[in-house]
Amino acid sequence: MADPVSLAASCAMPPVLSKSAVTGGEVKRSAHMKMDSYNVGAVAPYQAMPVAGPVITHHKSTALPVVEPHPEMTEEEREARVAEMIGSYMKKLAERTHHHMGYPYNLDFDYGLLEGLTKFSINNLGDPFIESNYGVHSREFEVGVLNWFARLWEIDEEEYWGYITTCGTEGNLHGILVGRENFPDGVMYASSESHYSVFKAARMYRMESEKIPTLETGEINYDDLKAALAKNAGKPAILNVNIGTTVKGAVDDLDRVLEVLKETGYTEDRFYIHCDGALFGMMMPFLSRDAPMVTFRKPIGSVSVSGHKFVGAPVPCGVIITRFKYVMALSSDVEYLNSRDATIMGSRNGHAPVYLWYTLTRKGYEGMRRDVEKCMRNAHVLKQMFESAGIRTMLNELSNTVVFERPKEEAFVRKWQLACEGDIAHVVVMPNITVEKLEEFVADYVQSRARVSIAAAKRVACEAKAAEEEL
Amino acid sequence: MADPVSLAASCAMPPVLSKSAVTGGEVKRSAHMKMDSYNVGAVAPYQAMPVAGPVITHHKSTALPVVEPHPEMTEEEREARVAEMIGSYMKKLAERTHHHMGYPYNLDFDYGLLEGLTKFSINNLGDPFIESNYGVHSREFEVGVLNWFARLWEIDEEEYWGYITTCGTEGNLHGILVGRENFPDGVMYASSESHYSVFKAARMYRMESEKIPTLETGEINYDDLKAALAKNAGKPAILNVNIGTTVKGAVDDLDRVLEVLKETGYTEDRFYIHCDGALFGMMMPFLSRDAPMVTFRKPIGSVSVSGHKFVGAPVPCGVIITRFKYVMALSSDVEYLNSRDATIMGSRNGHAPVYLWYTLTRKGYEGMRRDVEKCMRNAHVLKQMFESAGIRTMLNELSNTVVFERPKEEAFVRKWQLACEGDIAHVVVMPNITVEKLEEFVADYVQSRARVSIAAAKRVACEAKAAEEEL
Repeated sequence: MADPVSLAASCAMPPVLSKSAVTGGEVKRSAHMKMDSYNVGAVAPYQAMPVAGPVITHHKSTALPVVEPHPEMTEEEREARVAEMIGSYMKKLAERTHHHMGYPYNLDFDYGLLEGLTKFSINNLGDPFIESNYGVHSREFEVGVLNWFARLWEIDEEEYWGYITTCGTEGNLHGILVGRENFPDGVMYASSESHYSVFKAARMYRMESEKIPTLETGEINYDDLKAALAKNAGKPAILNVNIGTTVKGAVDDLDRVLEVLKETGYTEDRFYIHCDGALFGMMMPFLSRDAPMVTFRKPIGSVSVSGHKFVGAPVPCGVIITRFKYVMALSSDVEYLNSRDATIMGSRNGHAPVYLWYTLTRKGYEGMRRDVEKCMRNAHVLKQMFESAGIRTMLNELSNTVVFERPKEEAFVRKWQLACEGDIAHVVVMPNITVEKLEEFVADYVQSRARVSIAAAKRVACEAKAAEEEL
Repeated sequence: MADPVSLAASCAMPPVLSKSAVTGGEVKRSAHMKMDSYNVGAVAPYQAMPVAGPVITHHKSTALPVVEPHPEMTEEEREARVAEMIGSYMKKLAERTHHHMGYPYNLDFDYGLLEGLTKFSINNLGDPFIESNYGVHSREFEVGVLNWFARLWEIDEEEYWGYITTCGTEGNLHGILVGRENFPDGVMYASSESHYSVFKAARMYRMESEKIPTLETGEINYDDLKAALAKNAGKPAILNVNIGTTVKGAVDDLDRVLEVLKETGYTEDRFYIHCDGALFGMMMPFLSRDAPMVTFRKPIGSVSVSGHKFVGAPVPCGVIITRFKYVMALSSDVEYLNSRDATIMGSRNGHAPVYLWYTLTRKGYEGMRRDVEKCMRNAHVLKQMFESAGIRTMLNELSNTVVFERPKEEAFVRKWQLACEGDIAHVVVMPNITVEKLEEFVADYVQSRARVSIAAAKRVACEAKAAEEEL
């Protein structure tokens, strides 16, 4: 590990916050960045700057300019230069992949067999079930994967519709849009700990929405939900149910939500439920314990998950499954494609379905179950390690997301790429996180805390000495 | 070429159109497909079925089921089976890539040097200019590419904002959303030949919209636009200007649109122009002739192009550039990302920026110019070949899209993957389309026409003989 920048080096480190927004009549992009002057290059060599406290600090990206041919450089020299740039970039990626704990991405995959696919421009534009005229596609893999998910969530092949999305956000944008198109005057309900794309969708789609407070665990507050539903009784309800929230991994209890709907007089023809299963939606079916299962045997409208999260893939992707009867409200034929337009995007990445198909095939159902088991077990190992080291944590029963105090040393946050919110951070224990890696991480965290404590003590001493001199 | 299915084989071929939509109370997906019973496996082996006339026919995708481990199969046998499936899929892709004419995708690229990148889960989640805490990203390449486009369209680095999108549709969804957020009560105007994503955006965003008729060339009808603008004079205008329409490659004259706005009393603070440059938006700057240039020196709000079209890439992608001052209406901070949320999607493909950067660097500005020149020249060669063979065509002055009569033989349409609309089809002459390939295509087209003519004549004879027998 590189030598950390000592926090004790100076008495004070005031962050430089946003400059004046508008200069000379023109709006400058850089004037809208909340920068911090403190440089931690030594600790996190590939990150320009550290995060700063609970306030968002913007880390300006660097730019690698497009390299134009230069008269004083031969073609060979230029090619060598480019190859060198790519080579050093790959080294960065390897280092960053090794030190990663914060986001729910499974970075452990081997798609060596599929490498030749990047020779082709694979595009599943339009509907997965209807071939467009563009022949370089991977619909056979896409439909194979969708059928697998349909079985997982218990819906008949003839009754579902779905597609492989570019990310979890697209799944939420789609699910909520399907809800709105079926209930144009519906009010959207979601907890305040929902993924940021949920309320973004409501704003985008100009839907009325209600942000419902949460319980301590991060679950939706069922009483508050009930009150809000009762208040808007005249209008249909479009609900986003979290199957694992972004920060705390909390699972909204679908059965209780259905009960609340019943108690407030909403019949099945007056609500639409979208389940945001980003990470946990595809882990829950593999749990043996009594979980409030997500299944289309219950009156839900759609489920979405991310593909690059639990399954793992080089490119972000996701899956959305909905009922065919609902998607008809969205669907229109596009002659140019010779296909149906019911997706959010037009052109669609055709590599992603092959990656997902390959992993599901390689691991099989049983292999996926083992991965889930391992993650749940290791999440408990991390919790116990933290607790034995005197660090407070929280781990929801149905979750592999271990929540703990936000580290004070921002270089540490950047080094391990932790996602933070308010005064908490989390580690999402994915299949690539081994016990050895957890051990390295916890030891590093304890040392970071020690440095912060020493620095705090030194600051008091520093101030006391200054006060003494003034006397 | 495989032996074509003879159209003369039977007298009549009635297509089987959609069955009853609802069966037994449940809505079945397959009941909503417009199928054709005619099988052309011999001609287009990787396409389930041919397109049928100007009516949309749905070609049902096949599914490759996820292969579960089987007790009677060893692990080695299973691996060999999967490798064989992937191998035969790659052969399909190669054949389909060779026979491709219809979509504006440059299939000629060599990203061999970048192959190792698929080992990493590269994700540029959030804003390109602000690093998120997730370290496995490619923002340095993304910003390098964006700066290149900013120079191309003449906007200062400090005054633009933009990102690399997943496709042309995302660019349009973003541009129109930025327009709406700046002018919440704005009316959207776009020609009837705009890409289907433009009116999809208006519906999604609940915007009032006006579909303006086109001229014969496919350009927007300026008089009709003027009348519509005058009619809605009380409300701001959000205009989609096509820089190359999907089907005819028609370029709306930006200068005339600006003139029309002036004549109808719309000042610059009361309109927003999004330029949909999907394919041609990045070709036009390289043309030497007097083109109505797309540049931020004119009062436009945003420009989008596709990356997998003219540049060419294995994954669909695109670029959107807008003015920073406009994007602020959309932007909100997301602490979880430690970044700003002003994109449509959340997780974003980090491979695409590296592909674009690599091609722009390898070819340089001059190489791109040569590619544009070659496409324009070959489009004229195709037009002349067609005309010398007695086939009517249309080629707009500012376009590499050659429009011609829709082939009657649907197997031919599928074989060459032509995009069709109404009674026309087109070939988009991309950098990978050589004169040799055009020659092969035209010869094949002429033979297809001959087969159709003979079949038609035979049908008449067939009917005449049947009538004779009845006498």
